[in-house]
Amino acid sequence: MNNLSEAQLYDQLQHLIASISDLDEAAMAKIQVRLNSLTKPQGSLGQLEHFAKQLGGIQRTSQPKLLKRAVLLMAGDHGVVEEGVSAFPQEVTPQMAYNIINGGAAINVLSRQARADVVLTDVGIAFPLEGNCLHRRVADGTRNMTKGPAMTKKEALQALLTGAEVAQEKIQNGYNLFATGELGIGNTTPSSAIVALLTNSSVESVVGRGTGIDDKGLLRKCQAIEKAIEVNKPDVTDALDVLMKVGGLEIAAIAGSIIQAAASHVPIVIDGFISTAGALIAAKLAPKSVAYMLPSHGSVEIGHRKALAELKLEPVLNLDMRLGEGTGAALTFHLVEAALHILNEMATFEDAGVSEKAN
Amino acid sequence: MNNLSEAQLYDQLQHLIASISDLDEAAMAKIQVRLNSLTKPQGSLGQLEHFAKQLGGIQRTSQPKLLKRAVLLMAGDHGVVEEGVSAFPQEVTPQMAYNIINGGAAINVLSRQARADVVLTDVGIAFPLEGNCLHRRVADGTRNMTKGPAMTKKEALQALLTGAEVAQEKIQNGYNLFATGELGIGNTTPSSAIVALLTNSSVESVVGRGTGIDDKGLLRKCQAIEKAIEVNKPDVTDALDVLMKVGGLEIAAIAGSIIQAAASHVPIVIDGFISTAGALIAAKLAPKSVAYMLPSHGSVEIGHRKALAELKLEPVLNLDMRLGEGTGAALTFHLVEAALHILNEMATFEDAGVSEKAN
Repeated sequence: MNNLSEAQLYDQLQHLIASISDLDEAAMAKIQVRLNSLTKPQGSLGQLEHFAKQLGGIQRTSQPKLLKRAVLLMAGDHGVVEEGVSAFPQEVTPQMAYNIINGGAAINVLSRQARADVVLTDVGIAFPLEGNCLHRRVADGTRNMTKGPAMTKKEALQALLTGAEVAQEKIQNGYNLFATGELGIGNTTPSSAIVALLTNSSVESVVGRGTGIDDKGLLRKCQAIEKAIEVNKPDVTDALDVLMKVGGLEIAAIAGSIIQAAASHVPIVIDGFISTAGALIAAKLAPKSVAYMLPSHGSVEIGHRKALAELKLEPVLNLDMRLGEGTGAALTFHLVEAALHILNEMATFEDAGVSEKAN
Repeated sequence: MNNLSEAQLYDQLQHLIASISDLDEAAMAKIQVRLNSLTKPQGSLGQLEHFAKQLGGIQRTSQPKLLKRAVLLMAGDHGVVEEGVSAFPQEVTPQMAYNIINGGAAINVLSRQARADVVLTDVGIAFPLEGNCLHRRVADGTRNMTKGPAMTKKEALQALLTGAEVAQEKIQNGYNLFATGELGIGNTTPSSAIVALLTNSSVESVVGRGTGIDDKGLLRKCQAIEKAIEVNKPDVTDALDVLMKVGGLEIAAIAGSIIQAAASHVPIVIDGFISTAGALIAAKLAPKSVAYMLPSHGSVEIGHRKALAELKLEPVLNLDMRLGEGTGAALTFHLVEAALHILNEMATFEDAGVSEKAN
């Protein structure tokens, strides 16, 4: 990928996007018939039934199966931290990356419980990691977006395709359920910028406290985003332009992993605020990818609901979480698994000799 | 229990209620210190952190553990179905009970996934079951509450203490995490009556479609509840009076199981609308029991939110479910387990060499 020109990278992305198909309606209809035959009032398992249908539509079969599952955790740094937008120093990005490599982070704990693997990819931490992760560095972090574009167009395309490449490698290794995840000190700032621009919202309505900044920090964060928008004048009708100017390397990689998942008929659970910003980029670049996204939790970050509403995703978990890493998505794996157990293991009215509804 | 007088049963219940203690604040404070030392922004795991603390407070230790877990599924029938308040005929209660005994119901599927046992108790199905369940029948279903009290005071007390007895037996067998569950055609009707009375709400604001009645059925259901209240004049300041007049045997047993769980320092996850009506009875009889309740999902039934608000419980799952049986609570076991994995397995800032927040 590193030898390709910007135009070639762009073509590669467009080719991938063009390969995404709609869900298989026939498979979904068959699953609906099966769900209606099960010993429960029709539709009474709500979102679990919807998950079962969606998985069938994605896998193009009335008997969807879950094989290996992974949290695709993309890590990158952000030049905008110079503006004092985060409660934690930038050195925490690699420190937490090593914590993840050593299995001590929240995402490791929750992934073990959900029998999922954590796949950490360094898309552009400020200083290279030396541990056991995927080293796919596009740049040494983004540049400070208050002074110019966070990335070049080529870097944005490389980061998008890096996400796609990691997803594709895992699919080839037998994974068929993904969660998005991310790590990067300062990354609620570019996420807020993306969400403001792509949902046509005011900056202050989508800026939250991230890892826990105080009131002054919140003001600096709003001002940094306002300035970045003023300086870069992103074209809100062009998600790639928004991404390169006010986005992040890991956010681009998340978008790319979603697009690849969709192209490969693999469901992908969208984690919290930063992941949803990546999902918005994916949705704008590849509208058909939205059908492959599964919701997870509703974050404490105030912009998250707006981003989810734009994608017409309703959170299934309400846990007041704001950690990222993919933690809400990993918890959602239990619910996705439950949906398939329901589809495959429940008795039908006929099997069980249960009377159906009177009317 | 069957040999005891009403007064003796009442004393037994009061004795049990008096034995409930407050949560152990010292254990909770220790857990808070531990949670704050873990490699995440403080409080960023939201409700998972709250669950971890609550479990410690309940078990009175800073190192809470989960052993065996069970869904205490109480079944009973309702005389009020004569009024045409349900979409399914009463014969479905025993049919579904056999389905549960045979492992084919939704609650069996979700409990297997959560490594929980389903403990089905016949507290008063209209016709006796002959299968492998706990046979603790108090009556052949309740009487039609539009014509007089659904139960005698003695029956209500027996059903409450039956729930307590089942919980106690399971605790003695090494269970230390419960979910409430229920089965009983027509049981959203008494539940709506209880919720209306104990939350001071209008009947129509807490009556939903249950298993799926049409508009005419919805009207009949409201009218039946209005009539039952008019005929019986329950004393809203006396939960036992409300329970006997417009409640249900399985709802009483749920309340009893909650009270016993609290008395025995065991957490209990509250399922959907009917279970929450039982929890309201428990809360009014034994206010200290509320601290031992864990929330699960927010049901489609419109009265559920009011009942949860009265208990100050916020649903953690948002799945548009309306099945009952304990299904939402069984799914919540994964989240309770996640809370303890987080507490026990995450690295601390010190262990991992991660810098703490700047201020």
